[in-house]
Amino acid sequence: MRRLPFDKAKLEEIAAKWPTPFHIYDAKAIRDNAKRLKKAFSWNKGFREYFAVKAAPNPYLMKLLKEFDFGSDCSSMAELELAAKVGNTGEAIMFTSNDTPEEEFRRAWELGAIINLDDITHWECVLKAIPQPADFENRVFCCRYNPGPLKGGNAIIGKPEEAKYGMTRTQLFECYARMKAAGVKRFGLHTMVASNELDPNYIVDTAKMLFDLAVLLNSELGIELEFVNIGGGIGIPYRPDDKAMDIAFVGEGIEKSYKETIAAAGLKPVKLFMECGRCITGPYGYLVARVLHIKNTYRLYAGLDACMSNLMRPALYGAYHEIVVPGKEDSSETSIYDVTGSLCENNDKFAIQRMLPVLAVGDLVVICDAGAHGHAMGFQYNGKLRSAELLLEADGSVRQIRRAETLDDYFATLDFAGLA
Amino acid sequence: MRRLPFDKAKLEEIAAKWPTPFHIYDAKAIRDNAKRLKKAFSWNKGFREYFAVKAAPNPYLMKLLKEFDFGSDCSSMAELELAAKVGNTGEAIMFTSNDTPEEEFRRAWELGAIINLDDITHWECVLKAIPQPADFENRVFCCRYNPGPLKGGNAIIGKPEEAKYGMTRTQLFECYARMKAAGVKRFGLHTMVASNELDPNYIVDTAKMLFDLAVLLNSELGIELEFVNIGGGIGIPYRPDDKAMDIAFVGEGIEKSYKETIAAAGLKPVKLFMECGRCITGPYGYLVARVLHIKNTYRLYAGLDACMSNLMRPALYGAYHEIVVPGKEDSSETSIYDVTGSLCENNDKFAIQRMLPVLAVGDLVVICDAGAHGHAMGFQYNGKLRSAELLLEADGSVRQIRRAETLDDYFATLDFAGLA
Repeated sequence: MRRLPFDKAKLEEIAAKWPTPFHIYDAKAIRDNAKRLKKAFSWNKGFREYFAVKAAPNPYLMKLLKEFDFGSDCSSMAELELAAKVGNTGEAIMFTSNDTPEEEFRRAWELGAIINLDDITHWECVLKAIPQPADFENRVFCCRYNPGPLKGGNAIIGKPEEAKYGMTRTQLFECYARMKAAGVKRFGLHTMVASNELDPNYIVDTAKMLFDLAVLLNSELGIELEFVNIGGGIGIPYRPDDKAMDIAFVGEGIEKSYKETIAAAGLKPVKLFMECGRCITGPYGYLVARVLHIKNTYRLYAGLDACMSNLMRPALYGAYHEIVVPGKEDSSETSIYDVTGSLCENNDKFAIQRMLPVLAVGDLVVICDAGAHGHAMGFQYNGKLRSAELLLEADGSVRQIRRAETLDDYFATLDFAGLA
Repeated sequence: MRRLPFDKAKLEEIAAKWPTPFHIYDAKAIRDNAKRLKKAFSWNKGFREYFAVKAAPNPYLMKLLKEFDFGSDCSSMAELELAAKVGNTGEAIMFTSNDTPEEEFRRAWELGAIINLDDITHWECVLKAIPQPADFENRVFCCRYNPGPLKGGNAIIGKPEEAKYGMTRTQLFECYARMKAAGVKRFGLHTMVASNELDPNYIVDTAKMLFDLAVLLNSELGIELEFVNIGGGIGIPYRPDDKAMDIAFVGEGIEKSYKETIAAAGLKPVKLFMECGRCITGPYGYLVARVLHIKNTYRLYAGLDACMSNLMRPALYGAYHEIVVPGKEDSSETSIYDVTGSLCENNDKFAIQRMLPVLAVGDLVVICDAGAHGHAMGFQYNGKLRSAELLLEADGSVRQIRRAETLDDYFATLDFAGLA
């Protein structure tokens, strides 16, 4: 069973101040993990991780990651503003968006972000969106490559040729040529072909694909890329039998590939960028809930005070999340439960037919690996409210980094006066 | 192609005041539909529909339905409060919940709601939750029956014996007996075995199952049920080749079954209740968006200014929603599009490989059947904001019944001061 950064007594102490359900993130583990990532790519001068804000759009987590010079990968106005709030502006923002509204291009430009174009037509959109004449000399633009049938698919994103992201190879070259003609001098190259991938070779191969393209862009268009952004998509071991991706192995594999392509071709050094989200915070966030009801009908149910609004992945994807019962870690008694939330949807279950220690009303239950795409994906369906987020520091202190929603939040967009 | 209650000129006029995307509901069509439902069950004295609030939790829609004496089917604190706001209190509320928090039982009791017990243990929870001694004499309690293997499954809810809802038959009888012993005199019986079901016989059979049980409850426990609540679950024809359920046929089928069971057994008249959501507002709500981008890579994409935050069903379930392009209804030119939103998820597509008139940037696009489980299910993932809701009255006037979210709403639970 998973080792937690808190025991039952500590959790009860926290829950006395912030009632369950809540999300809690382990600051020390996130910091250690950030260090591991930087170390794996320390061979690359200028390596930078742009944290995928959508995975955990909390400014306190973003600020923590900024200690390691992590930038922000943003794809909406709200995410751009969050980045600005934590002091990530200029080239600390990678604006990687698709189907982008004009005002978001404008705001990204104002903030000095690296603008990553998803489509060849977006260059015209940028020209329309930003004040003219624009000084392109010192600004960095990036193009998003979709390899189509040239690259095998990933289980979640699917086949690249069926994905809405990026440009074809022909469009990519055309887009760089147009930008160059308009006076752009600083370029990057990006792709995003994976999500929750656990095969390290898939990531290494993706980097190689982009390095090869960098060499071609240099020889065909005379463009010297400043960076190659291999996207994110590194998975985490949700299931007990999943193997975490060996990030040092990935770093070494990409370094080898870099030497064989970029360095061998005599190109100027190219910075490696990533846009990881899940593997940065995912394993270090926990949803803590309490058993409200034990129900015994055709199955045995443990009903929690959390529901799918707090963590959508099990209900949406049938995703597996490990469940730990603090204080009963070593219990030998076991029963099989459907662990449910109270949402009026039958799929509101955190686990189906899961072997757990015998549960009782009042037990604390910890749902693991909720640190990415957890709180972030919550909805208010069925009138459910989203919970607080807490941060556990290395010294054991805990601070609230997002308050729980109230009914007033839920009703904020309604004007009841008109009902009279 | 679907006939809309507005043409392009009217929509442009609306969009000039409330920018796209927005949801718009057709008040006249909702009223006509409510009348049809009441007529189909006019043979039953006391028939009542409790609108499933979660389908469209907007108090202005709830108030409109209250014109037809529709009550509110609530399953959370927020929904209870919404019901109270529109003046649905007392027995106009059916509190049908599962894994219920104590404070929600208390609030439902305070509001005079009919409390529908999901589990046999919930009777004890109610006793704990409400002030004692409680006067049970005039209050109505209901039990939720899960037929388990005695009833075939529905495609969405699945097999009843794998569903978290309700009590077994044995528990049901035991629960009524306990309540009777505690002084409860007014009872109802409920089940919920279907979702988005298009087979009218499934609904008729469900009613028969409960009528049979009503007869048994009378003979075995001496309980005279005041009502039988057959739940909701009536589907709507999302696909062009789906057939709408013939509600008059359902009404007649249930009437026949009623005569053969309740009436034949000589029981006092039993009221028939329903908890429909989808079929009440679903077909009469539209998501209106505008084409932001046309993109041509390995496929042709029409990118809208709406995204799955406005309507989750296609991305979540691969659900089909008809798409109409006002002003191009009769266009013979056709192309195949993936109609996408801007969310940074590849499954953010309203339609995949859909034949549509040739689209251009700026075109208005209407996504049909968005009137239930549409706005209600929206999340803020990726920093996306939920749109406004508008109501189109029979005289062509339009009013806003929910404002669009702003960035301030999105940031409401964050305290940026702590970042300094």
